[in-house]
Amino acid sequence: MTVETLEDVGELAQQLRVDSIRCSTAAGSGHPTSSMSAADVMAVLQARYLRYDWGLPDNPANDHLIFSKGHASPLLYSMFKAAGVVSDEELINTYRRFGARLEGHPTPVLPWVDVATGSLGQGLPDGVGVALAGRYLDELPYRVWVLCGDSEMAEGSMWEAFDKAAYYRLDNLTAIVDVNRLGQRGPTELGWDLDAYTKRIEAFGCRAIPIDGHDLGEIDKALASVGGAGQPTVILARTLKGRGFSEVEDREGWHGRPLPAEMAERAITELGGERHLTVSGRQPDGGSPRVWPSGEVSLPRYELGAKVATRLAFGEALAAVGARGDVVALDGEVGNSTHAEEFAKAHPERYFEMYIAEQQLVAAAVGMSVRGYVPFAATFAAFFTRAYDFIRMSAISAANIRLCGSHAGTEIGADGPSQMALEDLAMMRAVHGSTVLYPSDATSAAYLVREMADRGGIVYMRTTRGAYPVLYGPDEEFPVGGAKVVRSSLGDQVTLIGAGVTLHNCLAAADELARDGISARVLDLYSLKPIDTQALLDAAAATGGRLVVVEDHYPEGGIGGAVLEACNDAGHPAQITHLAVRGLPGSGTPAELMEAAGISAAHIVRAVRDLLGA
Amino acid sequence: MTVETLEDVGELAQQLRVDSIRCSTAAGSGHPTSSMSAADVMAVLQARYLRYDWGLPDNPANDHLIFSKGHASPLLYSMFKAAGVVSDEELINTYRRFGARLEGHPTPVLPWVDVATGSLGQGLPDGVGVALAGRYLDELPYRVWVLCGDSEMAEGSMWEAFDKAAYYRLDNLTAIVDVNRLGQRGPTELGWDLDAYTKRIEAFGCRAIPIDGHDLGEIDKALASVGGAGQPTVILARTLKGRGFSEVEDREGWHGRPLPAEMAERAITELGGERHLTVSGRQPDGGSPRVWPSGEVSLPRYELGAKVATRLAFGEALAAVGARGDVVALDGEVGNSTHAEEFAKAHPERYFEMYIAEQQLVAAAVGMSVRGYVPFAATFAAFFTRAYDFIRMSAISAANIRLCGSHAGTEIGADGPSQMALEDLAMMRAVHGSTVLYPSDATSAAYLVREMADRGGIVYMRTTRGAYPVLYGPDEEFPVGGAKVVRSSLGDQVTLIGAGVTLHNCLAAADELARDGISARVLDLYSLKPIDTQALLDAAAATGGRLVVVEDHYPEGGIGGAVLEACNDAGHPAQITHLAVRGLPGSGTPAELMEAAGISAAHIVRAVRDLLGA
Repeated sequence: MTVETLEDVGELAQQLRVDSIRCSTAAGSGHPTSSMSAADVMAVLQARYLRYDWGLPDNPANDHLIFSKGHASPLLYSMFKAAGVVSDEELINTYRRFGARLEGHPTPVLPWVDVATGSLGQGLPDGVGVALAGRYLDELPYRVWVLCGDSEMAEGSMWEAFDKAAYYRLDNLTAIVDVNRLGQRGPTELGWDLDAYTKRIEAFGCRAIPIDGHDLGEIDKALASVGGAGQPTVILARTLKGRGFSEVEDREGWHGRPLPAEMAERAITELGGERHLTVSGRQPDGGSPRVWPSGEVSLPRYELGAKVATRLAFGEALAAVGARGDVVALDGEVGNSTHAEEFAKAHPERYFEMYIAEQQLVAAAVGMSVRGYVPFAATFAAFFTRAYDFIRMSAISAANIRLCGSHAGTEIGADGPSQMALEDLAMMRAVHGSTVLYPSDATSAAYLVREMADRGGIVYMRTTRGAYPVLYGPDEEFPVGGAKVVRSSLGDQVTLIGAGVTLHNCLAAADELARDGISARVLDLYSLKPIDTQALLDAAAATGGRLVVVEDHYPEGGIGGAVLEACNDAGHPAQITHLAVRGLPGSGTPAELMEAAGISAAHIVRAVRDLLGA
Repeated sequence: MTVETLEDVGELAQQLRVDSIRCSTAAGSGHPTSSMSAADVMAVLQARYLRYDWGLPDNPANDHLIFSKGHASPLLYSMFKAAGVVSDEELINTYRRFGARLEGHPTPVLPWVDVATGSLGQGLPDGVGVALAGRYLDELPYRVWVLCGDSEMAEGSMWEAFDKAAYYRLDNLTAIVDVNRLGQRGPTELGWDLDAYTKRIEAFGCRAIPIDGHDLGEIDKALASVGGAGQPTVILARTLKGRGFSEVEDREGWHGRPLPAEMAERAITELGGERHLTVSGRQPDGGSPRVWPSGEVSLPRYELGAKVATRLAFGEALAAVGARGDVVALDGEVGNSTHAEEFAKAHPERYFEMYIAEQQLVAAAVGMSVRGYVPFAATFAAFFTRAYDFIRMSAISAANIRLCGSHAGTEIGADGPSQMALEDLAMMRAVHGSTVLYPSDATSAAYLVREMADRGGIVYMRTTRGAYPVLYGPDEEFPVGGAKVVRSSLGDQVTLIGAGVTLHNCLAAADELARDGISARVLDLYSLKPIDTQALLDAAAATGGRLVVVEDHYPEGGIGGAVLEACNDAGHPAQITHLAVRGLPGSGTPAELMEAAGISAAHIVRAVRDLLGA
């Protein structure tokens, strides 16, 4: 049977409800009632508006459908069944089971899923990123449809998303808010007050369309009207949680609970029984994404000994890597500090100012990664903590994003601890599959920026505020996962291990120790994850196991942690003298603060003397 | 000279500008222009409306003044000079200097500062917490005044704050937005569009008062009108950045830049020269905070062997600890999962539902800590990543807050990776001065909840979703920083170290190993920070250095990292066999997922056999 009339669509909606119940009851967990509330809107969307080539999920002209309320996965997967790409058997027998692709919350293990959701307030910001790509990069007419929950409207990130969607005039973006008035443990803040939602949405510059989310005609009219006028659309659908089954409809206490088998049976009967409609829907309009011309990447070259901040080298290298047409850059209104502005000057059409909204900053990068671009997002390293939930989720999304955090550690000086990233290395190392880089000079920073562009997953670079001498000639190579012995001799008695500013402190300490006849090896640990375990073991072996690790970071989970974990994993536990920031810093000059934190050259010298009993 | 007429107030405003210039020029860094824009509003506030006993900052009846735009610290400190509590000498000679209390961004090292700011979008949410305390706990008429920047209006957390302020009818809260239209690197999104701001503020349920932020009469009228009607007030002050010095006024390129000495001289001349007015302002209305009756805390007692989830024990113990009248609880709309609802049932007047807004959840706790309450905030452990910037800042604020994250690790099962905290231990360990607890059974969880109430700083407890056997009798003690040997004998060949669910896996493994004649010691590492280093060293010594650490967390910076770092710090590096979650989990049963992650009892048994060559 084909789905043509609104009556047919109504049948489809009932099928989606029945299937949502069936799969969650079979799994023994899941969110059927949160699926049932949105079934009518999704049925109309799927049958009449979503332009999607189900056989070719990579078709660049496809619309994008994101469930920001990821817990409504039964509904999403039931739509996949209705599209004919997931069998009834897979839906009922594998949902939420071990090893299955129909996970409790959607992830891109499924080819029709762009991003992982399940942490509320993220699907819409991600969708803003996809819509930005559609309008400004691909220049394709695809639409981005995001199903949101009403509970997640309490997340600030939603308002960052509405704000940016309006600011960038994303009329290719439609958010549909399933206002079923019930959260997990009771009523939402605003209940069914669609007026209140409308005012908020309109105040943030989007077009609001309040509708009865169970009136197929109203839904159809609303979906037909989206787009144009340079404004995103937000459809506010008043719905009933558990709609269609009188025993649970609009009742509290049914969030995240599958129906017991007998109830499920009664529900399916009330909903008119099982159906197995397949809906072909609309095909995408076609077209190919704009091709951005690509040229040779010619990295900046720095003179040995010249003082250049790694944050500046990041910016200059990013501008150079921008010769690749697939590279885009975003910043959180601090581009003159992170030096992302170098890219903005060189490639203004591929630069996106996200203002002070770090969650949306990262989410926009994730959305652009969905469309195959190579996004770099930059802000102060400290402020990436604001987006940690987004960063961890982007790993589940299998996104390929590059983050650059500047102004790390006490080295920033007078601005004080609020601006000092002192936990970012621990945070980023703990992200699944992440890469963590921390160059010490301009040459290695520039080289690694190019490496970042080629590397998948979540790739983080930490840069330093101050300017320090260039240590390497322009033809030196810095593979990810490597390390550099910056100074060594046969008689080395100790290895000093640093990265970023502390490498320079290690070099200064080595100079002073040399004056006392103590020979110190210095290791530049520019890649913290993956880490060059062999270089660590070699250094330990060459210098009697004496290792001094110095970091401008709190002691937990940073460079010291990385060294200890790597040596342990290799079966050669290390003993390190660990110099890290143990107190709460205040303001001061970089030199004063590093001295106070115990990570200055003087402290390193003292630590070595203690170690050698000298 | 006294400050009485508006003309006098105008003089005070000029003094604040001059002093903002003087101190930042002397320091060679800082944000004078961001201070000058808000000087008129702050002068009127300080002279006529702020009710503050400057000699007694701890007076509970004092108003609260928070600079959410913390970079305007020159203005704040100039107000302290005008109040007579900071000398001109201290202001000019110590601002931003090493060891000084006048740091680059305000911190509570200063007795008149409630919370550290400098990461934008946090002062207002913190202020909401203080206002909640004022209205619902202290029941005192003090007001909370928050100076906000216009750039930070792009942060989603601001809208979480406006939303909650309106929801809780906080008419004791006034936000003043300094709309100087210029951010760090250029114009803000909305510029001087006060209409757009007004619509947003009103849509979020607050009263908006747009004014000319340099018209003292308008300012005075606006400040006189705040309060009442159960609504927070937001004064939108149209201002000029750098107001009062024609060479920088309303010009781009002057953010975060002190005036060079000669410019500063010209500016001071244009502003009418130095002044040294002292303003006494208004005294607080007086009154004492409501005294909440306190009773004996009687912790729940659990039967050995009974299966009880630690999250339930957390909730039950929290309800019990609520016998202390100073304990309050907050939750992010998942109280029926975290079991914070047990507290809500027992002490509804001291329970605050923050809905799905984790940043505001933590900030509200910080605000309540400012007023001396003992807040516990709970949500899924995974979702505390959403508030990491707030958590790190609360450490700088020297706040005393307790966080409980439930549903940790792969053990949660079918919901999938979006709901699995797998990086929370690394994140929380890296917070300055934090305490990280991870109980394995109901008895220890309950005990530790009471310990949390007595402990300062940022205290985190990780709880487990599933129910596991009670391991300890009700009279057992669990000091923070301790560990428990759960099983041991003289012939132990290996130590198994776990916490939370993995401790139970270790016990099961020990049982199976015992059947093969292998004797395993089992260590319950319920306190990860501080950690019981001696217990680790003793175990290593007793079992031939053979340690197996098992954690339901990614490998970086979690329990394994804590063990390695502790042993290293003690000068006895450990070699551990480290079982942790190395892949990206999907859905499944807890048993399937722990087996797949390599942290099940079977994997522990295999690891021990490998270690012993058995």
